[in-house]
Amino acid sequence: MTKAVGTLVLLRHGESTWNAENLFTGWVDVPLSEKGQAEARRGGELLAEAGLLPDVLHTSLLRRAISTANIALDVADRHWIPVRRDWRLNERHYGALQGKNKKQTLEAYGEERFMLWRRSYDTPPPEIEPGAEYGQDGDPRYAELGDELPRTECLKDVVARLLPYWESSIVPDLRAGRTVLVAAHGNSLRALVKHLDGVSDEVIAKLNIPTGIPLRYDLDEQLMPVVPGGTYLDPDAAAEAIDAVANQGR
Amino acid sequence: MTKAVGTLVLLRHGESTWNAENLFTGWVDVPLSEKGQAEARRGGELLAEAGLLPDVLHTSLLRRAISTANIALDVADRHWIPVRRDWRLNERHYGALQGKNKKQTLEAYGEERFMLWRRSYDTPPPEIEPGAEYGQDGDPRYAELGDELPRTECLKDVVARLLPYWESSIVPDLRAGRTVLVAAHGNSLRALVKHLDGVSDEVIAKLNIPTGIPLRYDLDEQLMPVVPGGTYLDPDAAAEAIDAVANQGR
Repeated sequence: MTKAVGTLVLLRHGESTWNAENLFTGWVDVPLSEKGQAEARRGGELLAEAGLLPDVLHTSLLRRAISTANIALDVADRHWIPVRRDWRLNERHYGALQGKNKKQTLEAYGEERFMLWRRSYDTPPPEIEPGAEYGQDGDPRYAELGDELPRTECLKDVVARLLPYWESSIVPDLRAGRTVLVAAHGNSLRALVKHLDGVSDEVIAKLNIPTGIPLRYDLDEQLMPVVPGGTYLDPDAAAEAIDAVANQGR
Repeated sequence: MTKAVGTLVLLRHGESTWNAENLFTGWVDVPLSEKGQAEARRGGELLAEAGLLPDVLHTSLLRRAISTANIALDVADRHWIPVRRDWRLNERHYGALQGKNKKQTLEAYGEERFMLWRRSYDTPPPEIEPGAEYGQDGDPRYAELGDELPRTECLKDVVARLLPYWESSIVPDLRAGRTVLVAAHGNSLRALVKHLDGVSDEVIAKLNIPTGIPLRYDLDEQLMPVVPGGTYLDPDAAAEAIDAVANQGR
């Protein structure tokens, strides 16, 4: 049996109001829906039932991840743990698609282009225009980024901007033996799983991470998963949800 | 005009379920009541209306302060700022009174002793017994304290344990020019105000800080308040609330 150095728990935020309306969200900072809040509470119950109690939280700068963590940790009686937030855990920037309806985008651009933007590893959507309604120009939380503020991203871009944060901020917590909760987004968590499990560029595009169900990774001394793919705290619900996400936007 | 180096905003948590039931709370980790959640939202609206936008948050380890900050910052669109939490910002430990009804305590011990425990500077209530229902023995958030875990505190004790955190963690944020939000408790904020305004031991006992109304302090280069006593963002509501708090427990 390989000795685990630390435990990583990934939690994808629950449904947002824009998920419910079938809009591309990306960096637009929309709140959780009522359903999303209930998913977060369920996530906290699963942590508490499993006795999987985070020692430290890492989130994105987006309220749907922040609220998910706040709600889940309150339910699990871990609301008091230290918190780190970073834009590098944000959802993929969806470029000019941000704020657009997924079904209408599919109809306007066709299946092939739609799937390329949604699920190819290295083809970003068109860039969002400076000053566009759903862009982040002037948002104080990204002021430090200056000209590095993304205007669109593919999953490859997310991997590239996520890994420096993984190495500099999350790995030290794991090496210290902590149980680390990362509350984030479909694509930033997919980027992390790609790195952890060594998933190929082709396969990662088809991998879905369900919302609100904590995914546990015990890591060995090389920070490799002891169980490849990790373990969902509610495997049946996870399997069901993965099917549902795969059919999203249809 | 004295130049301010940083801006400090104090926010006392809204009503908790135990405030509503008139119980001594101290370090018992009770949630906000519905009214308390509404107070927190109002606090966030006041921050947003005043354009007083925190760059960093400091809270206690107690959920009524943590939730107040989470709610207020979400309303003010500042949910994404960095967070620091520390037990040194906790409410005063109320010793053996924790969990006891205030009115019954007043009747059982008489006005003089009751007011001494509630409002003297240096007379703590009786110590809470090891393993008592409303003590904090074995609570993981205080594990690092070991034998230093308080069993009761007077306001003087709160000042003594708060000031090291003020110096080591809050002052550096202020010196860096940040707007610092401290979301905490009646007595930890009273301890801070005593230090900032140089309030005497006698007078601090009579000073009440209302819940949910941000109190702004601009500080000069010696970290002295530019306006002694600071400025409430809603002065009329603050004056009304201060009268109400003074009559609590009757």
